[in-house]
Amino acid sequence: MDVDALAAIVGADGVSTADADLRHYGDDWAHLAPPAPAAIVLPRSVDQVSALVRWAEATGTALVPSGGRTGLSGGALAARGEVVLSLERMRRILAVDAGEGTITVEAGVTTAAVQQAAHAHGLHYPVDFGSRGSSHIGGNIATNAGGIHVLRHGMTRDQVLGLRAVTGGGRVLDCNRGLLKNNTGYDFRHLFAGSEGTLGIIVEATLRLRPPPPPQQVALFALPALQALMPVFAAARDTLALGAFEFLTEPALQHVLARGGRRPFAAAAACYVLAEFDADEPAALRLFEALLARGLVADGVLASSQEQAAELWRLRESITESLAPRRPYKNDIAVRVARVPEFLARAGALFAAEYPDFEVIWFGHIGDGNLHVSVLPPVGMPHPDFVAACARVTARLADLLGEFGGTISAEHGVGLLKKPYLGCSREPAEIELMRGLKRVFDPAGIFNPGKIFD
Amino acid sequence: MDVDALAAIVGADGVSTADADLRHYGDDWAHLAPPAPAAIVLPRSVDQVSALVRWAEATGTALVPSGGRTGLSGGALAARGEVVLSLERMRRILAVDAGEGTITVEAGVTTAAVQQAAHAHGLHYPVDFGSRGSSHIGGNIATNAGGIHVLRHGMTRDQVLGLRAVTGGGRVLDCNRGLLKNNTGYDFRHLFAGSEGTLGIIVEATLRLRPPPPPQQVALFALPALQALMPVFAAARDTLALGAFEFLTEPALQHVLARGGRRPFAAAAACYVLAEFDADEPAALRLFEALLARGLVADGVLASSQEQAAELWRLRESITESLAPRRPYKNDIAVRVARVPEFLARAGALFAAEYPDFEVIWFGHIGDGNLHVSVLPPVGMPHPDFVAACARVTARLADLLGEFGGTISAEHGVGLLKKPYLGCSREPAEIELMRGLKRVFDPAGIFNPGKIFD
Repeated sequence: MDVDALAAIVGADGVSTADADLRHYGDDWAHLAPPAPAAIVLPRSVDQVSALVRWAEATGTALVPSGGRTGLSGGALAARGEVVLSLERMRRILAVDAGEGTITVEAGVTTAAVQQAAHAHGLHYPVDFGSRGSSHIGGNIATNAGGIHVLRHGMTRDQVLGLRAVTGGGRVLDCNRGLLKNNTGYDFRHLFAGSEGTLGIIVEATLRLRPPPPPQQVALFALPALQALMPVFAAARDTLALGAFEFLTEPALQHVLARGGRRPFAAAAACYVLAEFDADEPAALRLFEALLARGLVADGVLASSQEQAAELWRLRESITESLAPRRPYKNDIAVRVARVPEFLARAGALFAAEYPDFEVIWFGHIGDGNLHVSVLPPVGMPHPDFVAACARVTARLADLLGEFGGTISAEHGVGLLKKPYLGCSREPAEIELMRGLKRVFDPAGIFNPGKIFD
Repeated sequence: MDVDALAAIVGADGVSTADADLRHYGDDWAHLAPPAPAAIVLPRSVDQVSALVRWAEATGTALVPSGGRTGLSGGALAARGEVVLSLERMRRILAVDAGEGTITVEAGVTTAAVQQAAHAHGLHYPVDFGSRGSSHIGGNIATNAGGIHVLRHGMTRDQVLGLRAVTGGGRVLDCNRGLLKNNTGYDFRHLFAGSEGTLGIIVEATLRLRPPPPPQQVALFALPALQALMPVFAAARDTLALGAFEFLTEPALQHVLARGGRRPFAAAAACYVLAEFDADEPAALRLFEALLARGLVADGVLASSQEQAAELWRLRESITESLAPRRPYKNDIAVRVARVPEFLARAGALFAAEYPDFEVIWFGHIGDGNLHVSVLPPVGMPHPDFVAACARVTARLADLLGEFGGTISAEHGVGLLKKPYLGCSREPAEIELMRGLKRVFDPAGIFNPGKIFD
């Protein structure tokens, strides 16, 4: 690796080949393989990114863009001698226009920093999830991050009014310019959203901010059976102004409680749903009574304070963290909302048959058809055996998703982890078009090669 | 033209070379040039569309997809011997799922039919504009149609959950499958939205339906000066739950009133804004009083009945129709909302200097930065002279838009009319990428060639 050439672009302090840095910057939360990048570069400007791209093209070096590396599909893993291009030194908030309701930031700004800047101007950035403090906006856009408020305001792509990206030839594209309406040809903004670094490096974004939501209330319901999930969702959606609707099963709750916290109800239930909605206590109580009368809920609690609301949210948001020590295999799947009940039954039967000794934890954003299923290995099973078993079952899950017209990745992206199963969600003709499209933006094949598709 | 070959695909009654049909199906509302297609085909199925595409590729024939042909940029004009592929016989509503909140339709279903089907199921399709009765959903998606409710629910692209399109090789792409969340590679749905028929033929769509909006109120305010527009908008946005915010100038009103209707206020004003919002009469009255006190409005009326609300809406919606006999040159431009006041001043000065004898009519969806500017020729000016004068001034307007980071087409699309000015909104590198991208989907170059870019 020609460190001098890189240092000439980003300065000596902007390049590293230290082992600790290679390990730190070369991996994401999926931990799929030992990171092995050749070097890390940390540009400070769009011009430097552009120069790095030209250098990579000239030398035939693969670049792996790197944000907060909280991705769960290995999209930011550099295991093949690539150069990792970290955006973490490009973290300026460039402008907030409260009148217009927009914020313009460099790609390395964290999700939480955008939320805080919006809040400081009396506005609201609605994309939110557990890794808000670490994840970068550039990474959010590259993976089209979802999270807990998709129901009301959509995915990350729906917040992006403008996007600057450095693509093939080091060219800087200024996509959509922050406009609310712009029908002048193909919308590259939506092409970069969800492209997982394969078309170029996102360097800046202009995001839409919203008026702060009205005061929210949080309720948690205990459900006697998974079959009650969709009727409860339909009733809640029709009677409350829902901002979030999350579910978790009793096994998921047990993992959370094992790390502290109080059981929310005296008795255990099959599963639980957390609903956040525009404050309307009478409507929430009427809903609860109606669901109780129909036998769809066994118990319920309406948070009476912000502290209690936060406590209920922690039950849902701590799941990922509580499972992490067991190194779970994570599925992030979706089917159309109308097909969720039938799919839950079929997938449940599949897992019961294929994973008899494994613990299967269901949770997710049920209101938009998105189910997270984390599989835990039996205690003592060697990790490679576990991974092999999961690969086998995931192939069958992918077939089932294909049958249901679903997706193998609802919000985590494809990266490396879901690449073998892409064919269940995208047809061969689509994948071939994706390859062609990548060649147009990235003729030298340097942008995160091998991610999403080969 | 090998009519027999076409008839073999779509049946003898599905192809026409009759003069009246060539004129009817070969043009859109822009009326840019005499239509001169070689033939019209009217397929009844996706399979027939696919076969037509393969035939076109084999024979090197350009296809112009044709919806309701209400487009305003010449995107559906066939003036060079193309074959027009009309979707009007593909107008089945395939499914409505009220629980999920989706509708699936063939591309030839009208916007109004989708609205009505949603309504019949207690739901709401939010995209709306004057040509709702004629425009097709396929055309809406191909031009990413906007309209009067973009403020609340976005453009057409934001309603599309799934989209089937026939692209190069006659391949049928099933994009996004109606899913709310799906992060499995590049999102072709958003690529087809706004592609103006240049990447393939949209044949089916699954659209998101919304809960019906709460009861709406409509207010019309008279403003003493254009400069009051943005302060009035900001105040309205901050105090009312706005669903629409439209403006028109006094000259626009005069054209509408010339065709009937009552002047809404005793005195004429510089311009008027129409606000539609979730019913909240006290808030609307407080807003009116505050604006009156600040001198930002001169008069106002709050519709006291649905009939009166419809009458106020007619003032805004009749503008296009009232100007049509004068064959106006239509600009459909946008800048970022924050820059609207400065831009209005600069563009107003430009028009005053360049169009001293022309009548310039301003109106539009000011809440999203979108301005419609219709230019009327002096009485008696030959149409070709008028078109030449407009082309000259539009070039200067395009320069101004470039300076402001704006767009030459906010919602009407580029088609043929705005193609010469695309460079003010998209950089050369972007246009080059668009060409490359079209080649990936359309290697034979048969899909609406010459539209958007050459």
